[in-house]
Amino acid sequence: MFELIHSSKKSRARVGRITTPHGIIDTPNFVAVGTNGTLKALDSATVDAIGLQLMFCNTYHLMLQPGTAVVKAAGGLHKFMNRTKPLITDSGGFQVFSLAYGGVASELKSSGQKKNDGSVLKITEDGVLFRSYRDGEKILLTPETSIAAQKELGADIIIPFDELPPYHIDPYKLKQSFDRTHRWEKRSLDAHLANPNNQAMYAVIHGGIDPDLRKQSCQILANLAFDGFAIGGSLGKTRQQMIEMLTAMMPYVPQDKPNHLLGIGDLESLDAGIRLGIDTFDSSHPTRCARHGLLFTSRGNVKIEQGSNKNRFEPVDPSCTCSTCKNYTLAYMHHLYKAKEVTGHVLATIHNLHFMVQLMADYRQQILEDRI
Amino acid sequence: MFELIHSSKKSRARVGRITTPHGIIDTPNFVAVGTNGTLKALDSATVDAIGLQLMFCNTYHLMLQPGTAVVKAAGGLHKFMNRTKPLITDSGGFQVFSLAYGGVASELKSSGQKKNDGSVLKITEDGVLFRSYRDGEKILLTPETSIAAQKELGADIIIPFDELPPYHIDPYKLKQSFDRTHRWEKRSLDAHLANPNNQAMYAVIHGGIDPDLRKQSCQILANLAFDGFAIGGSLGKTRQQMIEMLTAMMPYVPQDKPNHLLGIGDLESLDAGIRLGIDTFDSSHPTRCARHGLLFTSRGNVKIEQGSNKNRFEPVDPSCTCSTCKNYTLAYMHHLYKAKEVTGHVLATIHNLHFMVQLMADYRQQILEDRI
Repeated sequence: MFELIHSSKKSRARVGRITTPHGIIDTPNFVAVGTNGTLKALDSATVDAIGLQLMFCNTYHLMLQPGTAVVKAAGGLHKFMNRTKPLITDSGGFQVFSLAYGGVASELKSSGQKKNDGSVLKITEDGVLFRSYRDGEKILLTPETSIAAQKELGADIIIPFDELPPYHIDPYKLKQSFDRTHRWEKRSLDAHLANPNNQAMYAVIHGGIDPDLRKQSCQILANLAFDGFAIGGSLGKTRQQMIEMLTAMMPYVPQDKPNHLLGIGDLESLDAGIRLGIDTFDSSHPTRCARHGLLFTSRGNVKIEQGSNKNRFEPVDPSCTCSTCKNYTLAYMHHLYKAKEVTGHVLATIHNLHFMVQLMADYRQQILEDRI
Repeated sequence: MFELIHSSKKSRARVGRITTPHGIIDTPNFVAVGTNGTLKALDSATVDAIGLQLMFCNTYHLMLQPGTAVVKAAGGLHKFMNRTKPLITDSGGFQVFSLAYGGVASELKSSGQKKNDGSVLKITEDGVLFRSYRDGEKILLTPETSIAAQKELGADIIIPFDELPPYHIDPYKLKQSFDRTHRWEKRSLDAHLANPNNQAMYAVIHGGIDPDLRKQSCQILANLAFDGFAIGGSLGKTRQQMIEMLTAMMPYVPQDKPNHLLGIGDLESLDAGIRLGIDTFDSSHPTRCARHGLLFTSRGNVKIEQGSNKNRFEPVDPSCTCSTCKNYTLAYMHHLYKAKEVTGHVLATIHNLHFMVQLMADYRQQILEDRI
């Protein structure tokens, strides 16, 4: 259930509240990625203490390890990973297709050659046959098998199976993919509605970098019984192109339901997205940065391994209230990274995620006050 | 300050209490090793919650990274690493000499050839000149520089600089080393007493595998103003030899002060050592086992990666009260290790350390009841 609390008088930015069986998600909000059913290096009590309201887990990874049947036997993903707060899972499609095209970043940099590593064996109307990177097993992922897997996982919000066309695709093939992906989403929705399982399903808006197709996608999906709208597929090669595309399409995204921008979480994109009315964003960016020693602060990023931090006996961010900043100094964090101690990753991950939680709370406050 | 609370009527086992400026250590007790000023993968709040009373940090590592001057500038090691409870540091000698002989385990397995990797450049009456493994810098470690470093770190308990002769050493060289190590310990004590800094210093009993030398060492050191007695050097090639040596020497270790067995922490040795009157034991064994997926339980060790754990939706040890066993299952832990998630190391380290804390509390209770 989505409740719109306030729309800014200055922009499309809005404050809302999503209610799920496992609690509330205040929007706009950041969604941390715990691919394998854990946030890297943190136990669930620590994640809860940070105040993260929604966590994103990847069906593709959980299908291959430990297998969704194991998670179901555990009583579902919440119980398996000891999380009492909301979870969202994707369809597995993104990973299968991005493996086929050699990953999003390298595909963007390429001139469009497929870098199929052999993992995707066949794409048909039925779905995708691929080879597990773990044991070489052949796996058929279809709208129905993806939704069945997501039913076994039991996240609060699930995503229909879709095709991820690469950025480098000719318009004819894009249209073919576009039509098929909407047929797959409809099949996914049907599979979901046959067994709602107290889960919500967000549609995925497609259309690549064609504004007309994006508009059409919104219209097609708005007519189906989805509970929210995720924005997927390539939105362009640069942040600027992405912002232009979002600017063009957001007026067509239904306003009475929550929306989500898939896989985007850098601070500049978040800022732009919030002003365009995006409700939630998932990204592994803050946690990956933490592991690489890049810490977010109100005064800009800190590269913790820089020698200048060796003797700085002050918190990473003196204005931050996270447990890392309350208890440890830059000098100690610098030492942990230099000594290659995993404790550094733990403390930096806590800090960066707390930064995101606080940042989003600040955005909500600013919107409520019509300041953005 | 050491207070003897109870001596068992059945063995040399005893219960005591060591009071330090940062709190109490109940004995017998296990001392976890946080080489670089952190327990691997755990923050200090987690360590405190486990109930670990004493942590062991390595002067050698902290001298090289971040340097003891940095730690001093931070306000000492407690403040640097945000630990409010007792700490003990060693002299750095163990690491320098074990590098010279290629590590304790490999030296034991060898037939006595020195495996000097070039890091130890010169051993003289003054001390040891060695090369830093980090940057190749030449460093002179002497009784005086080791104690100065340990003064900068500021642990509650410190250790004199000693020479670690290898297991394979001829009696003449052992005696030479023996005499020098006791001269070094005396110089260390003098350096310590010139600036007590509210720290206690434990002597290190030497003598290798010669019972007469071990007895002499106890007698020499008992006549000096040490606050406690650590047992160092090679005690034999097997656990049985170690137990025989401890059996022979413990009657000569002063009873009115605490004693410590350096670097021994496997469960069988602990059990034997406690019966012989050892008060504390340090070892990285439980934390290293945790990282390798070997979990200690009241029913024996669990190899978490074994396939049989895939579907076991019960705690690692149903009788354990640690946060890992209260919140997670064998199946989830198995999954984390299979997925190579560091969170698995975090949860397993918590469990194994909690096991050690509980085990030592149980030993104390058994001794108080004269059951061992």
